Amino acid sequence: MNQQTDPVPELAVECWFNCEQPLTIGALRGRVVVIEAFQMLCPGCVAHGIPQAQRIRDYFPDSDVAVLGLHTVFEHHDAMSPVSLQAFLQEYRVTFPVAVDRSDPSGTPKTMQSYRMRGTPTLILVDASGRLRQQWFGRIDDLVVGAEVMRLVQERNEVREYAIEETVGPNVGVCDNDACAV
Amino acid sequence: MNQQTDPVPELAVECWFNCEQPLTIGALRGRVVVIEAFQMLCPGCVAHGIPQAQRIRDYFPDSDVAVLGLHTVFEHHDAMSPVSLQAFLQEYRVTFPVAVDRSDPSGTPKTMQSYRMRGTPTLILVDASGRLRQQWFGRIDDLVVGAEVMRLVQERNEVREYAIEETVGPNVGVCDNDACAV
Amino acid sequence: MNQQTDPVPELAVECWFNCEQPLTIGALRGRVVVIEAFQMLCPGCVAHGIPQAQRIRDYFPDSDVAVLGLHTVFEHHDAMSPVSLQAFLQEYRVTFPVAVDRSDPSGTPKTMQSYRMRGTPTLILVDASGRLRQQWFGRIDDLVVGAEVMRLVQERNEVREYAIEETVGPNVGVCDNDACAV
Amino acid sequence: MNQQTDPVPELAVECWFNCEQPLTIGALRGRVVVIEAFQMLCPGCVAHGIPQAQRIRDYFPDSDVAVLGLHTVFEHHDAMSPVSLQAFLQEYRVTFPVAVDRSDPSGTPKTMQSYRMRGTPTLILVDASGRLRQQWFGRIDDLVVGAEVMRLVQERNEVREYAIEETVGPNVGVCDNDACAV
Repeated sequence: MNQQTDPVPELAVECWFNCEQPLTIGALRGRVVVIEAFQMLCPGCVAHGIPQAQRIRDYFPDSDVAVLGLHTVFEHHDAMSPVSLQAFLQEYRVTFPVAVDRSDPSGTPKTMQSYRMRGTPTLILVDASGRLRQQWFGRIDDLVVGAEVMRLVQERNEVREYAIEETVGPNVGVCDNDACAV
Repeated sequence: MNQQTDPVPELAVECWFNCEQPLTIGALRGRVVVIEAFQMLCPGCVAHGIPQAQRIRDYFPDSDVAVLGLHTVFEHHDAMSPVSLQAFLQEYRVTFPVAVDRSDPSGTPKTMQSYRMRGTPTLILVDASGRLRQQWFGRIDDLVVGAEVMRLVQERNEVREYAIEETVGPNVGVCDNDACAV
Repeated sequence: MNQQTDPVPELAVECWFNCEQPLTIGALRGRVVVIEAFQMLCPGCVAHGIPQAQRIRDYFPDSDVAVLGLHTVFEHHDAMSPVSLQAFLQEYRVTFPVAVDRSDPSGTPKTMQSYRMRGTPTLILVDASGRLRQQWFGRIDDLVVGAEVMRLVQERNEVREYAIEETVGPNVGVCDNDACAV
Repeated sequence: MNQQTDPVPELAVECWFNCEQPLTIGALRGRVVVIEAFQMLCPGCVAHGIPQAQRIRDYFPDSDVAVLGLHTVFEHHDAMSPVSLQAFLQEYRVTFPVAVDRSDPSGTPKTMQSYRMRGTPTLILVDASGRLRQQWFGRIDDLVVGAEVMRLVQERNEVREYAIEETVGPNVGVCDNDACAV
């Protein structure tokens, strides 16, 4: 995968919480996408990752930044079923959409594999053109995260200003086939 | 229940984790007993209650203070099954024994009822004579908890010094029947 | 003062620490300027303001963002003399330049007055064109601060791309170094 | 000095804050004495030591535990004068009595020397008989501090119960104020 030009892999999802219909990364083209990959029984996710994702959701306008959770269970599968996750999201007052990563016989779920994540929490930033721009494993300072999300928001604004000219070019808006839009 | 003289109610337990055989409050007579009542999806329990109980375990000698967890599930019962609890205890590295409070048709488990707990986390201190001495609901400062546990440890030492004389009296060592010892 | 178009007031400074020669806001035109106004005996400044300013310094390149401290003493003047400040900066390992706000017979120092600060800590963001863009009083989340500093950094990059055209205009905010003012 | 039997050295004090008349360790015999040795520009003292001492003051009854601050300045002497200290105590809302350790030509003040302190913060526990029982350098958990202070409070209660018998002996811990010994 060439991070500079290729769009990120689409999410492989078993089911969604906190959203009315399934989302795709492709359909979010035009907005910055923040993905918080977590496990509900991962202490670092609970203490730092999830609250940080919620702070991103609370500060940036939904029209600029989409925040998604991704439940990437690679251990204790029976203990972190969708039933348990649903209660977890309610108790921790998570309001952004959360996808359950599709299970795989290897034990590591499919999206986790396609993004080559090293563990949880992993925080992923996708720019408005659908390209992977940051993938952090572990705890990251809020100052850094706030800055890097805003960098992509501002780039997007630039892109939109240029958009009229760019849309005449032949290679604009590269994206995968089945969901990509905007 | 007269807190001054009566022993605390015995625990009603479905199963235990982190211990080889079932424990009873009665069998712990002679040691201070600290009970951390929690739910694995209760944010205050995870952030404050459980780590505090572990700090008590780490500081006080096991011969002076017994630390027990009690999983008192009164909501989201399906989400906090023993299978999920077991993974939780492993991920959060809880090393002290944890009992699962016996379920009740009302939804509030039996030990939670007999101690009239108001919710989770609840931290309970039982003195070496088996009497209830403190029952805190919510977050309590470590300084206070450390002081009050030590108060009971020191009282116990006094009691043991007096024990030779007292055992000759007729009313010494009041305790319930089926487990009381020491 | 029209915040949209006028440059911010210049700093009124008694002396500087951590820099070889006096700085002016005017001379920093072209870079984002972050001003942390504090008092060395203000608990909120010590616990939150100063460490946050240092984190800004540590993350953003010096060529993009200038971070300045401003010691705005409006109480206990004898207790917070430059001698005490110098030791404070050393003990707290503050590495960015710090100016001592010029005293005034009213007790409130001059820069504090010209920026109409309400107290300490106050965090001020000045864009690359020298205009006041944010002035926060009290504690602000790192996520917000990181985002808003980056917003101005990115705007600056845009401005620089446009700069060739803009410099031909008669009313562009270019100003000389040491005298630029309202 | 034999810690088991000898009373701790008396404080060498230049001046006091937050108390109407000078205190001595000797005059506090019968109460547990907690001494927080600090410097007002020591980050660990400000962040942890002073707030912890205040929590001890807030929880334990004054009749059981005396809490004293000791300003042991061994660096930046000009920056931490009594004038600066007074403002510091007001801003940080320190309500317990604070002594300024008597200066010495060596730079290390006299009480700091007599207690062989390694730096600041140092937390010292003196039992009700005036003996040194704990001297911690650096950050100590609240749970530990709360427990160890209570240990001495409870020991004191035991001592008082025995006091009637003990006062018949010739060398029992009766003592005058400023020179007291066991």
